[in-house]
Amino acid sequence: MKKYALGLDFGTLSVRALFVDIANGEEAATAVFEYPHGVMTETLPNGTPLPPDFALEHPQDFLDGLEYVICAGMKAGNIRPEEVIGIGVDVTTATVLAVDENGTPLSEYPEFNGCPEAWMKLWKHHGAMKMADRMLEVARERGESWLNYYGDWLSCELFMPKAVELAVNAPEVFARTHNLIEAADWIVSKLTGEVTRSVALAGCNSLYRRDTGYPSKEYFGAVYPEAENVPDKLVGRIAPLGGCAGYLLPEMAKKLGLLPGTPVGVGMIDSHAAVLGCGASRVGDMVSTIGTSANNMLNALEGPGIPGIYSAAMDANIPGLFGYEGGQNCVGDCLAWFVDNCVPASYMEAAEKEGVSIHAYLQARAETLKPGESGLLALDWFNGVRTPLMDFSLTSAIIGLTVRTKPEEIYRALIEATVFGNKRVIDTYEENGCPVNRIIAAGGIPMKNSMMMQIYADVIGKDIYLCGSSQASARGSAILGAAAAGPEVHGCKDTCELIEKLGKLADKVYHPIPENVETYKGLYALYRKFSDVMSKKDSVGRELLKLKYK
Amino acid sequence: MKKYALGLDFGTLSVRALFVDIANGEEAATAVFEYPHGVMTETLPNGTPLPPDFALEHPQDFLDGLEYVICAGMKAGNIRPEEVIGIGVDVTTATVLAVDENGTPLSEYPEFNGCPEAWMKLWKHHGAMKMADRMLEVARERGESWLNYYGDWLSCELFMPKAVELAVNAPEVFARTHNLIEAADWIVSKLTGEVTRSVALAGCNSLYRRDTGYPSKEYFGAVYPEAENVPDKLVGRIAPLGGCAGYLLPEMAKKLGLLPGTPVGVGMIDSHAAVLGCGASRVGDMVSTIGTSANNMLNALEGPGIPGIYSAAMDANIPGLFGYEGGQNCVGDCLAWFVDNCVPASYMEAAEKEGVSIHAYLQARAETLKPGESGLLALDWFNGVRTPLMDFSLTSAIIGLTVRTKPEEIYRALIEATVFGNKRVIDTYEENGCPVNRIIAAGGIPMKNSMMMQIYADVIGKDIYLCGSSQASARGSAILGAAAAGPEVHGCKDTCELIEKLGKLADKVYHPIPENVETYKGLYALYRKFSDVMSKKDSVGRELLKLKYK
Repeated sequence: MKKYALGLDFGTLSVRALFVDIANGEEAATAVFEYPHGVMTETLPNGTPLPPDFALEHPQDFLDGLEYVICAGMKAGNIRPEEVIGIGVDVTTATVLAVDENGTPLSEYPEFNGCPEAWMKLWKHHGAMKMADRMLEVARERGESWLNYYGDWLSCELFMPKAVELAVNAPEVFARTHNLIEAADWIVSKLTGEVTRSVALAGCNSLYRRDTGYPSKEYFGAVYPEAENVPDKLVGRIAPLGGCAGYLLPEMAKKLGLLPGTPVGVGMIDSHAAVLGCGASRVGDMVSTIGTSANNMLNALEGPGIPGIYSAAMDANIPGLFGYEGGQNCVGDCLAWFVDNCVPASYMEAAEKEGVSIHAYLQARAETLKPGESGLLALDWFNGVRTPLMDFSLTSAIIGLTVRTKPEEIYRALIEATVFGNKRVIDTYEENGCPVNRIIAAGGIPMKNSMMMQIYADVIGKDIYLCGSSQASARGSAILGAAAAGPEVHGCKDTCELIEKLGKLADKVYHPIPENVETYKGLYALYRKFSDVMSKKDSVGRELLKLKYK
Repeated sequence: MKKYALGLDFGTLSVRALFVDIANGEEAATAVFEYPHGVMTETLPNGTPLPPDFALEHPQDFLDGLEYVICAGMKAGNIRPEEVIGIGVDVTTATVLAVDENGTPLSEYPEFNGCPEAWMKLWKHHGAMKMADRMLEVARERGESWLNYYGDWLSCELFMPKAVELAVNAPEVFARTHNLIEAADWIVSKLTGEVTRSVALAGCNSLYRRDTGYPSKEYFGAVYPEAENVPDKLVGRIAPLGGCAGYLLPEMAKKLGLLPGTPVGVGMIDSHAAVLGCGASRVGDMVSTIGTSANNMLNALEGPGIPGIYSAAMDANIPGLFGYEGGQNCVGDCLAWFVDNCVPASYMEAAEKEGVSIHAYLQARAETLKPGESGLLALDWFNGVRTPLMDFSLTSAIIGLTVRTKPEEIYRALIEATVFGNKRVIDTYEENGCPVNRIIAAGGIPMKNSMMMQIYADVIGKDIYLCGSSQASARGSAILGAAAAGPEVHGCKDTCELIEKLGKLADKVYHPIPENVETYKGLYALYRKFSDVMSKKDSVGRELLKLKYK
């Protein structure tokens, strides 16, 4: 009999199921379901308009998707219920849901379903900016010990500011809330009938520390009196990553076409699940997921917080290891901006004539340029700066322009800028005593943009490995599903061995080209120098912003 | 009987004749002739290939054009020979010709017509870069007194480096040369049969000073021994601007359909003739000719050289006044670069749909933006920097970019940059004791780009006047033609009164908008600050260039 581990990966717009054969790691079947309501930014389903910074999801979409992808995947792969040995779940970061004692979202209550705050908040929900600022201020005043694990800064995208937002802006919903829960933990509770909170999610998004727990009621009360009871609304045991959260309920098993009692793993963050999917199990392994933005997740021994590295927690990536996460706000986004706003018609026509995408066309021309040849240098600050400056007001720049500058030269300079930005994250780790030994690139861009990957290798001066699966997160969740079944089922000594067995790297490795490494050393030094010039207190860029917003 | 002054304006690609009715200033007729050989940059007429930096013209094109435009203009305006009271001539700057005792170009000699150096060199001929560098070095060593009148710097586009180039690279042609002459003076000599050198051309392009004359043979000998005799090849009296160079020869009169003995004015530089054409006769008047690049010509009392103001000479613009010239390397050029390289297809299509040029389309969108609103700041250094830095290696930059930046915002930022660059020229004058009282914009762009002109007014904080003729230079030459005829013919007290009478301003004046003036004060301060950051000795921009050219 085959043994399949099932990974469920809930993304921003869709959920995916992936069935991995644990004997050989083969991806036997997959299925995808797009959320009917997508991301709600304009109105609620009943037509209530939303404030401008809101980004909500419909919890029923998740449940409908759960059923669809499992049934469809099993059918496609001709998989029998008894062949599924365990289920893992990952969801996007800090997807916050207010539920009652039965795990029913309060947004389903008729009296609350016109209240935006009662709905499930997506990672990019920005309704809690004011709350995050206030929380940061109070945390600094009180010298809260957890703060340095969040880069000495608090994003409004984290779990707690969204929880405080509910308490302050919708006190009647907050009063009725039994549990404020991450969507990953909520799905696990729906599958198993018990509330098990993932230590990875708690540590990375909810200000939870193993030693001190959640921030105190005194802290939340000092932030806003209405928020004092937030810690009381965090119900459920906190479980370590790689453990078993519980067993599939009979009624869910029936719905999903699985066996009751199938083990369900502790939930995970989608981007962090990719670390498992790549098999990056060692201290010093760093997985960089590169898409519109980039996250660099590093496995380390337990250490202090690092300024500009916005999360640091035990079990963040790999069970039993400490994990850091730093990153960049803009990678694919700035190339998309360039293509949409700065590429002349003649290039579009030429690409069409050649039957290639405009990105492929630009890449082919940019690839013929030598490092430094264009005389251009750009910053990757088109969406502000995450690591290490944590300053989202900063703006980008391109220098070295002349009337002879060509579009492909700017395109290459932008790619180089994003790679320089990534190296700066790596430098931040290494300058703070966390060596980065092996670099693995995952996500959409590494598969498509070989020039960018070569530039990564040349700028960073190390081999760049690629994830061997186009579904790294779902694969990571499948591994956690297998882990939940235990060694007697998956046959590995421990979870670490299981990760090494089922995680997958591509055959292709990008090796640095020595002469390029040399030139990029000089260019990267100029990138750092220019970053300093543009970010210092009275920089021209900052003064410009004052004029813009005066 | 009508009285017409004839202005001949020899540009880079064509010559124009303009007949101005001196009673009322009306432009009675005009005719244009395009040079059949255009600018020769690839080969000579006999097929000889040219070195890469060469830009030559065919002297016969000038003579053919002379005949054509006068005959065609007179026919078009139904003008009789006796109605033409005087002829003025302007030609592009530093157009150098080697001629024999009869004024025949040596390029017409069969033994020399395959020699590139024997041909007429256009202003943008860059074959003498090495010579200009060497001349600058020796001038600094020797403390040559004329150097500070050329901004403490020597362009390879000036007359003398091109003369030295001939002496060094084509000694046999140089040996046979009787006279090295500016094309403007050569045309005057062809018309009158006598060689009269314009003090404006000598002072602005040929290192001539009223007090010390041309640089000495000792100087030229120290530059290159082969060049020692350059001063011997500068034959002809030097005549003041506004004077009569001579009278039309009978054989030329016959060819041109004019009366023999018609007075011919002393020659002029084309861009400087525009000062006359605008009627900018007063001390403190500045005419800015704005096209691909910009030249700011200021009338002043005699003064010292100003660093970064690359020419300063008596009679440079207006007879009897001292004239300065500073300017920018890139105005229209950088907008053309932007449109060719950075405007997306969607904008091109929208402009086409609206039936407007892409510049008009961008301008309409950019016009709705408030100063400072985009958060962008650019430098106008896309072709290096003329005034005040005289550094042609410097490159441009755009800062303040985000993924929300739109093409029209960049377009406006580039326009603002060119205006800031122009203000910096004005600041250079004023910081060196030369007040700029009245500003007149001439050239192609001011007529077309009302947004740019409003930004000029807002940035500079003064009214901006426009030239009232689309042919400012030809109009200026016509004034010099009338001046040559003398007060008894033109009826004005002196040349200055004549200029005020025949020079022409447009009715439209751009007045500064106070709130914009306030914002632009702040933006211009940032432009200056960023210029300093990017031009200082170890700036990131300069270090980038080292990497580019290593």
